[in-house]
Parts: sequence; structure tokens; C-alpha cells
Amino acid sequence: MKKIGVITSGGDAPGMNAAVRAVVRAALSRGAEVVGFSHGYEGIIHNESQPLESAQVGGIIDRGGTFLRTARSRTFMTPEGREQAYNVLLQNGCEGLVVIGGDGSLTGALKLLEEFDYPVMGVPGSIDNDISGTDFSIGFDTAVNTAVQAIDRVRDTAYSHERVFVIEVMGRRNGFIALEAGLAGGAEAILIPEVPFSIPDVCALLRSAAERGKRSSIVVVAEGAARAEDIKDFIEHNTKFETRHVVLGHMQRGGSPSAFDRVLALRLGAMATNRLLSGYRGEMAGVDGNKLVSHPLSYVLSTERQIDPERLILSDSMSI
Amino acid sequence: MKKIGVITSGGDAPGMNAAVRAVVRAALSRGAEVVGFSHGYEGIIHNESQPLESAQVGGIIDRGGTFLRTARSRTFMTPEGREQAYNVLLQNGCEGLVVIGGDGSLTGALKLLEEFDYPVMGVPGSIDNDISGTDFSIGFDTAVNTAVQAIDRVRDTAYSHERVFVIEVMGRRNGFIALEAGLAGGAEAILIPEVPFSIPDVCALLRSAAERGKRSSIVVVAEGAARAEDIKDFIEHNTKFETRHVVLGHMQRGGSPSAFDRVLALRLGAMATNRLLSGYRGEMAGVDGNKLVSHPLSYVLSTERQIDPERLILSDSMSI
Amino acid sequence: MKKIGVITSGGDAPGMNAAVRAVVRAALSRGAEVVGFSHGYEGIIHNESQPLESAQVGGIIDRGGTFLRTARSRTFMTPEGREQAYNVLLQNGCEGLVVIGGDGSLTGALKLLEEFDYPVMGVPGSIDNDISGTDFSIGFDTAVNTAVQAIDRVRDTAYSHERVFVIEVMGRRNGFIALEAGLAGGAEAILIPEVPFSIPDVCALLRSAAERGKRSSIVVVAEGAARAEDIKDFIEHNTKFETRHVVLGHMQRGGSPSAFDRVLALRLGAMATNRLLSGYRGEMAGVDGNKLVSHPLSYVLSTERQIDPERLILSDSMSI
Amino acid sequence: MKKIGVITSGGDAPGMNAAVRAVVRAALSRGAEVVGFSHGYEGIIHNESQPLESAQVGGIIDRGGTFLRTARSRTFMTPEGREQAYNVLLQNGCEGLVVIGGDGSLTGALKLLEEFDYPVMGVPGSIDNDISGTDFSIGFDTAVNTAVQAIDRVRDTAYSHERVFVIEVMGRRNGFIALEAGLAGGAEAILIPEVPFSIPDVCALLRSAAERGKRSSIVVVAEGAARAEDIKDFIEHNTKFETRHVVLGHMQRGGSPSAFDRVLALRLGAMATNRLLSGYRGEMAGVDGNKLVSHPLSYVLSTERQIDPERLILSDSMSI
Repeated sequence: MKKIGVITSGGDAPGMNAAVRAVVRAALSRGAEVVGFSHGYEGIIHNESQPLESAQVGGIIDRGGTFLRTARSRTFMTPEGREQAYNVLLQNGCEGLVVIGGDGSLTGALKLLEEFDYPVMGVPGSIDNDISGTDFSIGFDTAVNTAVQAIDRVRDTAYSHERVFVIEVMGRRNGFIALEAGLAGGAEAILIPEVPFSIPDVCALLRSAAERGKRSSIVVVAEGAARAEDIKDFIEHNTKFETRHVVLGHMQRGGSPSAFDRVLALRLGAMATNRLLSGYRGEMAGVDGNKLVSHPLSYVLSTERQIDPERLILSDSMSI
Repeated sequence: MKKIGVITSGGDAPGMNAAVRAVVRAALSRGAEVVGFSHGYEGIIHNESQPLESAQVGGIIDRGGTFLRTARSRTFMTPEGREQAYNVLLQNGCEGLVVIGGDGSLTGALKLLEEFDYPVMGVPGSIDNDISGTDFSIGFDTAVNTAVQAIDRVRDTAYSHERVFVIEVMGRRNGFIALEAGLAGGAEAILIPEVPFSIPDVCALLRSAAERGKRSSIVVVAEGAARAEDIKDFIEHNTKFETRHVVLGHMQRGGSPSAFDRVLALRLGAMATNRLLSGYRGEMAGVDGNKLVSHPLSYVLSTERQIDPERLILSDSMSI
Repeated sequence: MKKIGVITSGGDAPGMNAAVRAVVRAALSRGAEVVGFSHGYEGIIHNESQPLESAQVGGIIDRGGTFLRTARSRTFMTPEGREQAYNVLLQNGCEGLVVIGGDGSLTGALKLLEEFDYPVMGVPGSIDNDISGTDFSIGFDTAVNTAVQAIDRVRDTAYSHERVFVIEVMGRRNGFIALEAGLAGGAEAILIPEVPFSIPDVCALLRSAAERGKRSSIVVVAEGAARAEDIKDFIEHNTKFETRHVVLGHMQRGGSPSAFDRVLALRLGAMATNRLLSGYRGEMAGVDGNKLVSHPLSYVLSTERQIDPERLILSDSMSI
Repeated sequence: MKKIGVITSGGDAPGMNAAVRAVVRAALSRGAEVVGFSHGYEGIIHNESQPLESAQVGGIIDRGGTFLRTARSRTFMTPEGREQAYNVLLQNGCEGLVVIGGDGSLTGALKLLEEFDYPVMGVPGSIDNDISGTDFSIGFDTAVNTAVQAIDRVRDTAYSHERVFVIEVMGRRNGFIALEAGLAGGAEAILIPEVPFSIPDVCALLRSAAERGKRSSIVVVAEGAARAEDIKDFIEHNTKFETRHVVLGHMQRGGSPSAFDRVLALRLGAMATNRLLSGYRGEMAGVDGNKLVSHPLSYVLSTERQIDPERLILSDSMSI
């Protein structure tokens, strides 16, 4: 291959810029050129393209978001949209495409492969860490650190006022961020969609913690499990604890990527590019522990990432 | 004076620990002892006291919140409560009291002086910066930095997705945090209770920014001016901009104090203590620019801090 | 005036980008154009110019360093160099120039005024805070926070190992950073060029602190006062304390500017521009406490900024 | 087992407090008691012991360093010292010991097992990440993030002044921190003890980068590979690049642990404790990717951790 395309697609995640940097430099170091399309698949369809040289991906490794910008494309969900995208890729001389994004974006990549036999490679970028075939998605570590730093701040004021705080973190369909941030934040309870819970039980747990001498507590809840405000109301009505809630929201998406996410992005971006240039296709780069792996997109997209049972047990024993 | 008391009272603010450190060490360096009461006035009433030595205020200068904890006391609002507090102070041998807190806490201090002729000194601690007689209250600079760092994160994702974000910051009765954080965060619009605004005008401003090529915008709103969610809804219904909102909430209260707040807290805590030990009473320590000042509590509490008109004009010219 | 120039010059300081943003937008909002020259005076001489529109200063308020880059120019120190610079400014249609930088850079501006009657305005940008006529220079607050965060980290390990740490911070000719960072970092001793000190006295102080029960201590030293390594060696040879040293160095120059520095930069940049466009010249914008002021460059450059005696006394009483 | 001891030993690492918290709470949740000894093995020998309840390990998960303090013990290196330590452990009723520390500390644990048949378990705590049998040691991720944030700051000023910066990071015997921080920091060259390098080659690389348009560069060097100052001198004498150097030093040891290090510490501390209470001994808890593992100390201590060849190749292709 002499030329490939690259997009960031779907929700943005810290480290996407580092991944684009890796795609560009890995390609250049093998003598191939890279075309960057803005706004994900939508930008391919409208041919928002620019050649990416080494200098253009300099000085971006520490930046949050994605300088290529991102979008969700309705047009690409239609067969006509995908055909248009395919044609634009050919017009630009791109013999393959690296897609950096989450489940939906990787599904789009797989369709390009299946419908047009077009070589694609996926790089998992998602703060939710809900993509199978890799232990970590790009952006997860940063999002967890952002949440934990916010929890640390809230604990200062929870301690000072002897209050209960309910903190809602991102995770519509899963509790990966909540579990990790709750453990690292020293939360007394962590509520996630994967595990049934009862708010009266949470109240009992808070009461028993108070009897052991704890004068302030933190409850972390994934947005997909319950609304922080509802839990706060229930606790206030059913216990004597003064309770407040905080919804962290979109600030979890941004920020300078952590060292972990930068190195992960470099490794996965470079690997996906190297394999694409070597003739592989239809895979997603990932890590199995410290080792690089590459799984078929069809496998990745048909498998659901499971919450770690060891961490669930750990969470219980740590909150005593 | 041979012995004085100290409390932190009302809402907690980063830097309160540094202020207590300064009270203790300034007193010790003049040969006086210090008694710390937990939970503000409530803790005086219930005699939750401990002698504070130099070592006990070591290693706390970098900690958010207040290790003395804080509370709002209903009992202290009654004459009986205050008499009880006065008696406990005498029982502990405290010949004066330093109160670190906001408007309400300083009002309590003034009552102790007026009703019992008891020597008190105030130190302004409030993230809202709404206390007269000082350019800065302890905690404001940290809270603004916390808000600005959150805005920076949100801007990453606003940029990547080309969205409008409405960010609600603390400030129930005033816009000091919103104005400072909005300026420092490069917000396109800043909405505060002190200045009438129209949301349709904000929409017009966003449209005109978009016409000039701006593809994402940040609106900062003080909680006392409007709810971020309402503004987001209005913008979404009346413009073509994809809009999201974030409510920063209580995380703005906590966190390790900034260098500015630590030095401010040391200076004000030491000054209040030195003046109390020298026989002054009924004042609040403050800064006028870089200079220390001490104003009568009666003056401080009867004057309202005004928003800075220069900053309002600046905000308009910076958002073009 | 229809068009003005702007440069950043001398040592870079966090907040310089915000200052350029303010110059550009303040000018645009009054109908004037702005030309940015790269690399300070050197870039004027070689006509490295670009028109600065509003969009070009968007998204830079949170960035450290200066996107216009900076340099020290030997050519500008010659009369021929300055004449060349003057001519280039005229060729570009610039009727005035805003110079953002430290003492040396402001001296250059004054020469343009004196030799060619060319309208200039100065904006104080210097992490050292050694410029007269303003309580704060742009970059100082950020540099102090950077140093304090490093001190906080070092204190963790000093505490864990019960060691003495000597930390060298920037400040070749003065101790502004050292004094502020030492106070905020809770240092046991602060050594600055302005105040004579004796290292044996420091050892005595450390011994007495150890006798009172302190098991670890921090000494902060300005690079202009002594070398951290030398002080460490002396302490190790003359006490029983295990001692280590750290030289913070250039990392104090960079980083995202603090909220304080951003707002300061916006205010000073806008004020200097507004006054230049209104016909004033030969001044430097500054703050006296919370109020904007504008002093003649001749006054600013002939006056030396003094260390605050109140802080020196405070430092003594806080380290007991 | 009814009662176990715990120490932190050797160099401190961020996350050690979280590890102690996990040991205490994992033991309590199984009905066993925990005794904490201060100052590592030295504190066992001198019986500096305290019972650790759940409340004593509350509020420390976010703190750098180790509240148990740490030390290197010469006495423990003698047979008499170890016998004394063994006796003190028995006197305290401790039926086993969890040792949190690096290679040297784990060697000490193994000796207790071998000489006295005393049950020990190790938890790897070391910012250097040089311990075999685990992908990550506690503290490494935080130290790398600290280094990367410093590199980010330095890059601001490197960019503004168009300079080369040589940054020395920790790592006396290996380049794990340097390689990870160099990759994440976008360094142009990374020099580590494991890989032979030539400084003239580095100069050639910098020259070729300059020819491609790069106007500033970062070189990261492990302290065990070369002194930053020497490299800076060589570059200044043999190229035309203005060059500066920074030695990050001990600030890399401290700071609030990252989310990754906190969760890692909880997992490893809990696992070591659970296995010790279940009758296992002489092992070290570790992670193999995302999975917990437990290897014999004898294996861990006789194996050397290797630098990752994939990252070395990545580093080359990323700096073009």
C-alpha cells in the first residue's frame, strides 16, 4: 500500500491525537502516505481530506479531544452513504483505512470491508472501555483519573461537613468507569448496571459505616445504573445523613491524556497501521495485558466485555 | 492574652487548614496557646476542644477542606446557644476567638463581641469571594482554578464534536466565580446574577460566532443566574447547535489549595491572630491589593462586594 | 490607529498566549488590525510577520509558552538593528507596538520610543515577578504553583524517609518565586538573595525543629542565593540528617497558565492595547492590587521591585 | 492465622498507602488482625508497632508516600538483626508478614522465610518497575505521569525558544521510566542503560529533525544511562542548537497516586493478604496483564525484568 486514510469517529476520547500521530508516523516510516479525513465517516463522504505529514502530528500528543474532529454520521448508515464514502476513499488514492473509535465506529469499518472488500483496521478509542478484544481502550485511564481527582475533591468537603456524597460518573451501559473510579476513590459503595443493587441496602451499609465511626461516605454510581439525584433523595429521606450529589458529566471526556493512554494509543495506532500496510485487514488492535494482539472485527463486535468479578469482590472487602 | 480559640465555620474552603496553621503558629511564636474547636460554633457549644500544638498543624498546608471540620449551627442562632458558647470559651481559658469562615460565620463572631464584649477576629474563608473588606477570600482562587480546569476539559470535547456547552459553576447570589472562570476559560458568554441577560441574545451571539467561523462555544453560567439545563434546552430549541450542559457542583469546594490561597491564608490567619493578641477586636483581616488591611466586622458585614465593571467590559471584548 | 504590531520577547512565561489574545481582540473590537511578529525583536527585523485575526488567537488561552515564539535579539541591541526594526514596522503599516516581556524587552520598547518617537506599550510577562510598577507579572502565579506542586511531591518522600530536602527554584537575581513557593510549600527555611543567611544557622534551625519532633524538613533556595547541592553537602557534613536536593529548573517556565495568570494577561493585554489605540505611549500596564494602572516605562525600568518585608516576617513565624 | 504484620520498606512509592489499606481491610474482612510496623524492617527490630484498624487506613488512599514511613535497615542485614526481627514479630503475635517494597525488601522477606520458616508475602512497590513476576509495580504509573507532565511543561518553553532540552528521569539500573515517559512525552530520542547509544548519533538525529522543519526537540535520558548535563554539553559543542537540561529528581517519587496505581495496590495488597491467611507463603503478588498472579519470591528475585523490544522499535518510528 502506498496511501491510507485515517479517521477518528464517534465519541471523542483522550489519546485519539496520539493514535493519529502513531498512524501517520508508522506509515511514513514505511514509506506510505496518510490522508486524514475530518469528522469521521461524515468527513469521508464529503471529502474533507488533508494530507498528514509528520509535522502536522507534532505537538499534539498531549492534547485532549481530536484535532481531526469527530462526528456521528447518519448518511453512512445508509448503503448509498457507504458507497459514497468508498468512492471518496478511492478518489483520494487510499488503499486502506484506519478507524479510531468505539463500537459503532468499528461496526462501520466492518461494513466497508464486507460490502466493498475494502481493507480496514480498527483502533479502540472509548472512555467507557466497553470494547471486547482489548484490556484497555484509549481514553479509559484518563477518564478514570479525571473522575478520581473529582472524587478526591469531593471527599475533602464530605469530610469537612460529615456528609454523604453520591457521585455520578459516565457509563450508560456499563460500570467500568464507576468500578475503577470507585475503587481508586475509596468509595463506600459502587453501583453499576451489571450488578443488581438495592438502595435500602446502601442505606444500611452507610448506617453500619457510621456506627463504626465513619462520619462521611462516598457512593459512586454509573449513569446507567441510577440517577445520583434519585439516590441522594432516597438516602436523605430514609437516613439521618445530610446528603449531596454531583454529576461529573462531559468533563470526563476531555483533558490531556494520561501517560498510559498516550503509550497505549501509540502502540495500537502503530500496530494497526503496520498490519494494514502488511496486508492484514478487518482486525482491531488491542492489548492482552502488556502484549499487543489483533482480533478480527467480527469477533470483537460480537463479544461483550465483562465486568471483572475479582474487582467486585475487592470492592466489597475494601469498604468495610 | 495567654490563650485563644479558633474555629472554621460555614462552607468549607481550600486554604482553611493553612489559615488554622497560621493562627496556631503566630500565637505560639508570641507565647500564646491555641484551642481548636471542631464543627464551628456547634463544637464550641458542645466543647469539642483540643489544644493545638505546632506539630498538629504540620503537614496540612496542602490539604483541602478543614481538619477541624465545619458545620452550620442552629443552636448558636439562639441567645441561649451563644451564651453557652461564651461560657465554654471561658471554661477553656480562651480570651479571644479567631473565626475562619464566610458572611454568616463572621456575623456570629460579631454577636459574640456585641453581646458578651468577647474579643473576636475574623478571617474571610469563602470560595464565593463575596465578602467585603478584602479583594480575595480564602478558597476563591482554588475554586476558580478547579472550574477553569474543568472548562478546559470540556472545551476539548466541545471542539472535537463542534458543540455548544453550557457550564454551571457555583455562585448562588453572585457571579464572582463565573466571571473569573469564564474569562480564564475563554467562554463566549458569561451569565451572572448581577447583570441582566437574555437567552435569545446569547443565541444570537452564538450564531454570529458561528458565522465568523467558530465551530464550538462555551457558555458559563453562575448557579444563581439560571440553570445550565434550561439554557441548554433553549439553545437547542432555538438554534441549530448541538448543545450539552455540565453542572460542576461540589467538586469546586475541595482540592489542594492553590499557592495563592495558601499564602493568603497564612497572611490573613497570622495577621488576625497578631492583632487579637495585641488587643484589637471585632475586625476582619483582608487584603487590599497586595497590602494587608483590617476592617471592622460591622463595616464588612454591612457592605456588599460589587462585581468589577472592568471585567464585565473585558468579557464582552474578549468573546468576539 | 488602524494597525498595531505585537511581539512576545525574552524569557517565555505562561499566560503570554492569553495576553496576545487580548491584544488582538481588544484591537479588533475597536476596529484596528493586528500584525504578529514571531521571535520578538529578531522577528521584526527579519519581517517574520502575519496578520492576526480573532480565530488565530482562539483555543490558545490554556496553552503555556508563546505561539509567536520568542527570542533574545543581539541585532536589536545595535542602533542599526533598531532602525531596521522601525522600518519594518512602518512597512507593515503598524502605527504602534505592544511588547509582552520582561525588563530587557521593555527596555527595547523604550528605545524605539526614544529613538524614533515610535508609540509602544509594555505588558509585563516574567515568571520572576521582578518588574516594578505592577504587583504581579504574567507567569509568576503559574510558576509558583508549579514549584509548590513539586514541593508537595517532595514532601511525601521527605516524610516517608525522614529526610531533609533542599529544593532549588528559579530566581537568579531575586527571591520572589522562592519566598512565595516556600511559604505555600510550608518550608522550614527559605533562602533568597535579598536576605543574608548563614548555612550553619539553617543547620541549627533544622536541629531545633528535630528536637521539637519534626522528622523531615524542606529548605527552599532561590538559584541566585546558593546552589542546592552545596547546601545539601553542608547539611550532610554538619548534621546527622540524611539530606537530598532537587533542582526544579526549566519546568517552572511551562505549563497551562493558572486562572490568575490568564485573567491578568487578558486585563493587561487589553488595557495596553486600548491605551495605545487611544493615543497613549511609552507606558506599561500593571495591577496595583485589584486595580489596573499604567506607569511610564521610564519609571518602571528605573525602579527596583522590593521583596515584601511582611512575608519575610511571616516566613519566620510559620516555620516554628 | 489470627494476626499478621505489615511493613513498607525501601524506597517509597505512590500507592503504598493504598496497599496498606488493602492489607488491613482484607485481613479484617476475614477476621484477622493487623499490626503495622513503622520504618520497615528497622521498625520491626525496634518494635515500633501499632494495631491497624479500618479507620486508621481511611482517608489515605489518595496520599503519596507511606504513612508507616520507610527506611533501609543495616541491622536487618545481619543474622542477629533478623533473629531480633523474628522474635519481635512473634512477641506481637504476628503469624505472618506482608512486605510492600522493592527487590531489596523482598530479599529480606525471603530470608525470614528461609531462616526461620516464617510465613511472608511480598507486594511489589517500586517506581522503577524493575521487579520480575509482575507487569507493573506500585508507583510506576504515577512516576511516569509525573515525568510526562514535567516534559509537557518543558516542551512549552522548548517550543517557544526553539531549543533542545535534555531531561533526566529516574532509573539507575534500567530505563523503564525513561522509555515510557519518553514515548508519552513525544521525545525525539530516549537514552537508556539497556541499549547502547552514541551521542554523536543523537546529534545527527537532531540535525536531521531540524532539516525536516522541527525547531525544538526533547531528549529523555535515564539517570543510569548518562548525565543530562554531559549530553547537553556535548550537543551544544557539536551542533548549533541552543540546549538546556533538566534533572527531575526526587519529585518523581511523590504525589497522589494515579487511579491505576491505587487499584493495582488494592488488588495486590488484598491478594497477598488473602493468600497469606489461606496458608500460602513465600510469594509475591503481581499482575500478568489484567490477571492477578502469585509467583514464588525465589523466582521473582532470580529473574531480571527485560525492557520491551516492541516499545524500543515504536520509539524509533515515532520520532521521525
